[in-house]
Amino acid sequence: MVHVLDEAIAVTRTEDGVATARTHRQWENMVGPFGGITAATAASAVLSHPDVQGEVVAITVNFAAPLAPGEWSIAAEPVRTNRTSQHWTITARQGADVVVTATAVTGVDRDTWADTEAVMPEVDAPDAYAETRIPFPLKWLQNYRMRFVAGEIPIPPAPLADDANAMFWLRHAEARPWDAPALIAASDAFYPRVFRRRGPSVRASTITLTTYLHASDAELAAAGPYLLLRAGASRYGRGLFEQRGEIWSEGGALLATTYQLVYFSEPRADA
Amino acid sequence: MVHVLDEAIAVTRTEDGVATARTHRQWENMVGPFGGITAATAASAVLSHPDVQGEVVAITVNFAAPLAPGEWSIAAEPVRTNRTSQHWTITARQGADVVVTATAVTGVDRDTWADTEAVMPEVDAPDAYAETRIPFPLKWLQNYRMRFVAGEIPIPPAPLADDANAMFWLRHAEARPWDAPALIAASDAFYPRVFRRRGPSVRASTITLTTYLHASDAELAAAGPYLLLRAGASRYGRGLFEQRGEIWSEGGALLATTYQLVYFSEPRADA
Repeated sequence: MVHVLDEAIAVTRTEDGVATARTHRQWENMVGPFGGITAATAASAVLSHPDVQGEVVAITVNFAAPLAPGEWSIAAEPVRTNRTSQHWTITARQGADVVVTATAVTGVDRDTWADTEAVMPEVDAPDAYAETRIPFPLKWLQNYRMRFVAGEIPIPPAPLADDANAMFWLRHAEARPWDAPALIAASDAFYPRVFRRRGPSVRASTITLTTYLHASDAELAAAGPYLLLRAGASRYGRGLFEQRGEIWSEGGALLATTYQLVYFSEPRADA
Repeated sequence: MVHVLDEAIAVTRTEDGVATARTHRQWENMVGPFGGITAATAASAVLSHPDVQGEVVAITVNFAAPLAPGEWSIAAEPVRTNRTSQHWTITARQGADVVVTATAVTGVDRDTWADTEAVMPEVDAPDAYAETRIPFPLKWLQNYRMRFVAGEIPIPPAPLADDANAMFWLRHAEARPWDAPALIAASDAFYPRVFRRRGPSVRASTITLTTYLHASDAELAAAGPYLLLRAGASRYGRGLFEQRGEIWSEGGALLATTYQLVYFSEPRADA
């Protein structure tokens, strides 16, 4: 049995540097696929490239247009290969239309001084929290299990929250080890922060997503099934807001940090 | 008199979509130009493009190789234009070599609900702090004035710091209003966080820089001369670390948030 994440990120190499992927029904979001799986597929196009060197350490994915169901092509090109890093430019199309642009950096592991300054939130183990069912008919949600520590979506008649902060444990619904594509997918598993402040009927969609991967493939593979995801927002305005997230292992390692600028549509309160 | 920042980010359009820039002696860094001015020049290539729509709201710049002194070409292409946003792919070369890749999103201002959740640090006005001279012979430092509130570089024999946190007021040495390119340049004005922890002799250089601009051009133009820059680090390891920053106006507005993954070279403490 191929895992549903691996089904979705599978690419076929059609000619030098160009890969073909297909959208996957089980990753459908409100409009088009879950952005995390799109980003993971872009990473998959890099990692399956014959010239790739090292592991993905940074990726920025820009969602130029919703993907229509079906095939999409991903041109991933290693535009610069240095001794310890490689720079990738990625352009994805459906027909002639650009639907996604991205850049990625892969890096060769070096054994250096290491430390973590970010502080893991003090939370209990996953089983101390009930499994949370987000009551939206979105296919991609079924691929994960979430246990909220704090910051659930305020579904009416629940009152709006005063801040966008949220923390939850996340695992794959069907067991699968963590690796770079899976972690990149998870980095978009935060619901839009504006839902906390203005309710879940606000239209919101990610414009650009940047994820830094701080753990090696070996460290990821050894992580437990659950990740702790923590998110907040900085500033909302002009129809845009930023959300910032951290992803921690159960063992207390900072695996990834992730940022996105999100489009939203909500009139001024006094308008 | 043209301001030294405007001299450096000036581009000449040579053919459709391609701009030519020149490195500027007064922005020299350790190896090649200050990354902030390179990023600002990439933004300038977008903003001077005849088809640009809206203001820069997000930019990711990847430093593939140090720029050699002289000309560089910047191909900035609007690969997708939506109603309220435009997606840009940017590739910069010297000769045949790719030196910089980038993506940017420009956005049309929309009048929406707005709020800020990030909290400005409580600091005194700029003139409460002495002007700080960073004793490095780097040309670009002369284009700014900095007043450190906390977190100066530990120049030996000063002891290494326990954390990477720093805050300082920054202004242009020669007065100039703030706008998107200037703010993008300033978003790289944090010295590498690893200097706090391991001293300023560590080799460090930015690999990828992402900046989100939360203020409109009008709001930026109305900001005072000083910005408050605050930076920290999350995790160091594998020869890489992330630094995260916020840029505030004197009036208390969050103007930008900025992130970068930085290369560093420093052996393990026990090696």
